[in-house]
Amino acid sequence: MKVVCAQTDLSAKLSLLSRVVPTNPTHPILANVLLTAKPDSLGLSVFDLSLGIQVWIPATGIEPGSITLPARFFSDIVSRLPNTEVTIEVEELTATLECGAGHYQMQGIEADEFPALPELEAEEPLKLPSSVLLEGLQGALFAASSDESKQILTGLHLGGHSDALEFAATDGHRLAVANAVAEAADLNVTVPARALRDLERMLGRQETEVMLRFDQSQVIFEFATEQGLSRLTSRLLEGQFPAYNQLIPRQFQQQITVERQLLISGLERVAVLAAQKNNVVTFKLDTVNQQLGISAEAPQFGSGQEAVPAQISGDDLEIAFNVKYLIEGLKAMASTEIQIQLNSATAPAIIRPLTGHKMTYLIMPIQIRN
Amino acid sequence: MKVVCAQTDLSAKLSLLSRVVPTNPTHPILANVLLTAKPDSLGLSVFDLSLGIQVWIPATGIEPGSITLPARFFSDIVSRLPNTEVTIEVEELTATLECGAGHYQMQGIEADEFPALPELEAEEPLKLPSSVLLEGLQGALFAASSDESKQILTGLHLGGHSDALEFAATDGHRLAVANAVAEAADLNVTVPARALRDLERMLGRQETEVMLRFDQSQVIFEFATEQGLSRLTSRLLEGQFPAYNQLIPRQFQQQITVERQLLISGLERVAVLAAQKNNVVTFKLDTVNQQLGISAEAPQFGSGQEAVPAQISGDDLEIAFNVKYLIEGLKAMASTEIQIQLNSATAPAIIRPLTGHKMTYLIMPIQIRN
Repeated sequence: MKVVCAQTDLSAKLSLLSRVVPTNPTHPILANVLLTAKPDSLGLSVFDLSLGIQVWIPATGIEPGSITLPARFFSDIVSRLPNTEVTIEVEELTATLECGAGHYQMQGIEADEFPALPELEAEEPLKLPSSVLLEGLQGALFAASSDESKQILTGLHLGGHSDALEFAATDGHRLAVANAVAEAADLNVTVPARALRDLERMLGRQETEVMLRFDQSQVIFEFATEQGLSRLTSRLLEGQFPAYNQLIPRQFQQQITVERQLLISGLERVAVLAAQKNNVVTFKLDTVNQQLGISAEAPQFGSGQEAVPAQISGDDLEIAFNVKYLIEGLKAMASTEIQIQLNSATAPAIIRPLTGHKMTYLIMPIQIRN
Repeated sequence: MKVVCAQTDLSAKLSLLSRVVPTNPTHPILANVLLTAKPDSLGLSVFDLSLGIQVWIPATGIEPGSITLPARFFSDIVSRLPNTEVTIEVEELTATLECGAGHYQMQGIEADEFPALPELEAEEPLKLPSSVLLEGLQGALFAASSDESKQILTGLHLGGHSDALEFAATDGHRLAVANAVAEAADLNVTVPARALRDLERMLGRQETEVMLRFDQSQVIFEFATEQGLSRLTSRLLEGQFPAYNQLIPRQFQQQITVERQLLISGLERVAVLAAQKNNVVTFKLDTVNQQLGISAEAPQFGSGQEAVPAQISGDDLEIAFNVKYLIEGLKAMASTEIQIQLNSATAPAIIRPLTGHKMTYLIMPIQIRN
């Protein structure tokens, strides 16, 4: 095998792929990246038996062939090479990298040993513009749990029927649901959040059409590039995702409309105090002055209050939240103004952007003793 | 006490000062910053009983007075305030911070309890342009040891006589000496490197004259600002700094002249391999081709070689170094070309910049078995 490609292309893709590679793999081959040289492209694949990614970069394949190389080590070297052409030549299982005045030898493992990425032929794929997919991920992915003991909550639920597609994630304390209008068919799967964060990175800002294929246990995302099909495969999470729609209240006693960025800035300041004790921030609805008071206490240090102008309907109310959950949800929205809807100090609150893509953020209040 | 100042001024200085404050102070007051309000300035001081800093910012002191407040907590809040005026008002021991629509209360400790920063009157101070001081620190400070068990090596030695000032630091494996032409008198003190890193931050890029005062146990650096005297005080390190000058060889068998940036880039790439095994990089002097070969091995992974064009005099030689020490030394120099002087594979090597400020970097080779 012998192939020539640009250092920038190779480095960018290797840094994406080497994130997927496990630190302590069960088998050495899983720490490697598979290189597949074709006449006018070089394919790069990684697979940890759950999550797999394959991408292609422009290249001149002088001698087509394939090899696997230690992914992180290869990526570390390539990222430091000068921005010029890189030649990779393989003799037996030794790959030689030449770039400028540098020569690097690496021991590879035969390509045959690399496990094949899952394939799903079957039916017509679901087709989504990348912008719709990215907006849905942006609106919900942050709320997924990182607690591996609740497997199903570490995923994002994709639900759909006819032309409505719904992205949902929850960690038991808050729930984020993003809605999109898209050909969705009947869809009811939970995809690991980790795989979808890598998909976000893979897509970057490119405008393309993404094809989704599912079966009982796998999902495959594919999109075309000039050099070949970029592909991310992931196992699905088993189990029933919580029936979240029934948790979202339909009627409210209080409604607050407030400028999103003003609220975030205020929350970030009181968060310094809240960080000293369980991240608790208190909202005080002041209907007379039409302002939302936010405050936090830091035992031994002091306390802080911010007043944010707001349009408030309903009765005065005091309600406490985890300030981190508030900030994360508000940052996932894009609209200038947002709406907060409440019923009581112990009932779930709903936050929604006033314009743009439809998103619903449910957050449970923290009970405070007076 | 009541004082009004700009958030940017206050935030910049607090972030500098809060670095000095110990995480687990022996006494609560040492975690605090002393605020001293004068009619047209606000003084801010911290002191951990070894290192002390006092700075002044422009302010309107409506009611002069003083208080101490928890430094990190205060800094964290101020850094998130909007870029506008901040009012600090103290009643009893409670300070109220007002900025925009935010109100923050903090519990302080009486200013009387704050330990006084050391003062040294005595003789005429040594006067140095800040540029001379900063160049000297830049050329030597990086080589100081971080191993607290060898106290004296955690400092930078300042030596002087008549018009020659010398900055030296060593960790036992390498030695950096920077020379400056400056009024220096008889000087022979060792200042903790940590205090000098804070001095570098305090000075930033401003062109000013720095006054140095010493006694047996203390050093004080002072420079004037519009609002008052900025001051850094530090205890000196006790003990005799190694007599380093006798370690520097005067005659050499081999001499290499090479472009500094080319050498750094090559070293940074082979460092990826060297990192797998003790950071060892090997230099091969090739007098026939007038090139410096640099190489490293990563057991199990592979190996790498770079060839850097160089002017080499003397015989061919193979010599090994710690690649981190090489890169740190080369980065502390500013000249386009540098000179490496050698005697044998086991004798100390000397690296010097070819132009600009005088600096000598001694590095011990690593013995390699063949």
